[in-house]
Amino acid sequence: MASVDVGVALLGYGTVGSAVHRMLVESGDEIERATGHRLRVVRALVRDPGKERAYAAGDGVLTTDFAAVRDDPSVTVVAEVMGGLDPAGGYVRELLRKGKPVVSANKQLVAREGAELFAIASEAGVQLRFEASVCAAIPVVKVLRESLVVSNVHRVLGIVNGTTNFVLSRMEEGGSYAEALTEAQRLGYAEADPTDDVSGADAAAKMAILATVAFGSRVALEDVERRGIDVVEPAHVSAAAELGMVVRLVGIATLVDDAVDVRVQPALVDRSHTLAAVDGAFNAVMVNGDAIREITLEGPGAGGLETASAVVADLVSVVGTAGTGFLQNDACWRELPRLDPGAWRSAFYLHLEVADQPGVLAHVTSRLAAHGISVAQLVQHLRDGGATLDVVVHEAPAGAVTRAAGEIASFPEVLRPPFLAPVITEGAL
Amino acid sequence: MASVDVGVALLGYGTVGSAVHRMLVESGDEIERATGHRLRVVRALVRDPGKERAYAAGDGVLTTDFAAVRDDPSVTVVAEVMGGLDPAGGYVRELLRKGKPVVSANKQLVAREGAELFAIASEAGVQLRFEASVCAAIPVVKVLRESLVVSNVHRVLGIVNGTTNFVLSRMEEGGSYAEALTEAQRLGYAEADPTDDVSGADAAAKMAILATVAFGSRVALEDVERRGIDVVEPAHVSAAAELGMVVRLVGIATLVDDAVDVRVQPALVDRSHTLAAVDGAFNAVMVNGDAIREITLEGPGAGGLETASAVVADLVSVVGTAGTGFLQNDACWRELPRLDPGAWRSAFYLHLEVADQPGVLAHVTSRLAAHGISVAQLVQHLRDGGATLDVVVHEAPAGAVTRAAGEIASFPEVLRPPFLAPVITEGAL
Repeated sequence: MASVDVGVALLGYGTVGSAVHRMLVESGDEIERATGHRLRVVRALVRDPGKERAYAAGDGVLTTDFAAVRDDPSVTVVAEVMGGLDPAGGYVRELLRKGKPVVSANKQLVAREGAELFAIASEAGVQLRFEASVCAAIPVVKVLRESLVVSNVHRVLGIVNGTTNFVLSRMEEGGSYAEALTEAQRLGYAEADPTDDVSGADAAAKMAILATVAFGSRVALEDVERRGIDVVEPAHVSAAAELGMVVRLVGIATLVDDAVDVRVQPALVDRSHTLAAVDGAFNAVMVNGDAIREITLEGPGAGGLETASAVVADLVSVVGTAGTGFLQNDACWRELPRLDPGAWRSAFYLHLEVADQPGVLAHVTSRLAAHGISVAQLVQHLRDGGATLDVVVHEAPAGAVTRAAGEIASFPEVLRPPFLAPVITEGAL
Repeated sequence: MASVDVGVALLGYGTVGSAVHRMLVESGDEIERATGHRLRVVRALVRDPGKERAYAAGDGVLTTDFAAVRDDPSVTVVAEVMGGLDPAGGYVRELLRKGKPVVSANKQLVAREGAELFAIASEAGVQLRFEASVCAAIPVVKVLRESLVVSNVHRVLGIVNGTTNFVLSRMEEGGSYAEALTEAQRLGYAEADPTDDVSGADAAAKMAILATVAFGSRVALEDVERRGIDVVEPAHVSAAAELGMVVRLVGIATLVDDAVDVRVQPALVDRSHTLAAVDGAFNAVMVNGDAIREITLEGPGAGGLETASAVVADLVSVVGTAGTGFLQNDACWRELPRLDPGAWRSAFYLHLEVADQPGVLAHVTSRLAAHGISVAQLVQHLRDGGATLDVVVHEAPAGAVTRAAGEIASFPEVLRPPFLAPVITEGAL
């Protein structure tokens, strides 16, 4: 097979960009064996060409001028590894319109502007790949699009944010949310401003992308129901432990009667469940479908090298499938309605702090029963002059459970707003 | 995109073959969206065309004549789902020589005759894909070949046989190997003749294929060091539990200094290890490489629908990448030597039944020390007039540990041949 040079341009040459360059150089033989082509970085767009780099770009490769990238005829494919919406989004649009395939590691861009970008890509007949935008090196997009093409996926369950996974695991050893977050920051697992992670925004963007690919229908970021982990208290974590569970930030995308529900929120996960075993900064995505039953992919969900590895795999796939029409189209091919969030069904956990007085338990449980909600487990403890009630209820519509919890919250003997979270057990969804 | 019919032939039309046909019909739209083509089964080779089928083939599709399949110009790609070495191997060779791409679900064929088959495929310039031959629906071959192309994979660890996983898990609830096997047979998890599973032969074929793909060097079936689970006794399982571990049949493929070691054997796996959580008939494959650190794929490792789903994914990939040269070549591109099996390093577990007399412990531990082997954990119990010694030693060369165990076995106070097994903990290899 004749080896042909393929010119690669990078938008951004930071940790990920320079690692992509290094991998293309050091694994040039492997890539040539797989694709018949040698990929070479010919342009890299940067803000400051004088800056020290982890892996030096070749002479004349670095440029501050986007037009020099866009108009370079030797550029066959482009990797967008700069991040942010602007100017990255504009650059990607221009490149796609010029017929250059693009590989993006930019989760926010794909989640927020995917509809427009894929429309441009389809019209131009070029590929837009985005494996690196979700869970770094875990090849979940490729597996969903290629391996599970006939699987009628109806659920994607994921731990897709390492920071929150670390913080919540840490809380099991004792200590408050604030203490665990501080330790995560000290160890480099959380950023100085952790908002994007702890609020669930990062996980929501990933789940929007995964749900779009899995269900073939566009899920916008604002369609994802989202709740952060800052509401999780030590009392919830210890009650979960007593119930044989752990608290985790879980992304749940469900297809019910051709309607889509996507949510990211703290959930109680049974200790025997695969997701409970996902360690620290690792991510895991569990996919349920017709023929495949359940397939789980687990691995490092972040990191420069891990992300670069996914970018390179996408570059290889773009080059390897060029001209075939294979997967050049948008993963999205239908418009499914959003499920009424209240109709989404799950088992739930309810934490209540109540006055220690007669009749509270009867009052709470009869209100649950009035909504047709059945109690699976209940633990009551005396604490600080009051009592805590930790209740797990059997699968029920989220709406009914939320309404019941709201009514219970207004009871005079309930001292604080209750904490409500879905419960994930094997086969529960 | 114009839809072009692609004629598919099936060799075999049993559970897997008829499920492939059904999926191609029922998911025709999904496949057309991904590939631009509609795949249709035009021929299916069977022994008895009159037999009742799970999903009816079209009129004139079933044939008992291989030549009718081979010489049909409307056949663009063939799925071999008949199993066995003969005549399947001969058919695949003929088809490849005629320029027909083949997708095979046949583990024994790929493991035993892969070298010859891939040579023929390369010469003919057609694809031979084999995702379905390993772990059914788990897309481990695609992930290794495409997503991890630049990852320098140096270890593949797998639970790749569901039957033995079920039997060993069952033994944790008490009961002998024979009892657990009988229950597995009763529940349909083990066949009437379970030899292929319990001897490790099935797992060895899968590990040979995975190691070949992961390391790019042919691993023949006879290169796999193999030991079955029939040597596992309740005493080992309960000692493992006491040490915080479980006994599992583990496939371990390791690349050490550009030499390959592949083995399948009962091993003790730490309870906190991902592989310990793999349930019943599920399989899991854990891949370690440079940039990706560790990626785990888990799912159903067997089953007709699950296997069919992988066959269809391969058909889709063949059609989607036709004419590009992408991954048409053999995964194998170098010839690496086999590691001296004695040089393979691991932590090990040693179970001894000894006479209850003074000095035994000192005798055993000083012999281990004489081989430079350091004890990590030791549990001694009195039992039936004698004593059991359960010893975990720190990482050491397999050769030294085997020699020490052999010498200890010859001690007069050692009542039965010892049981020796590798120990798998996080980061231990």
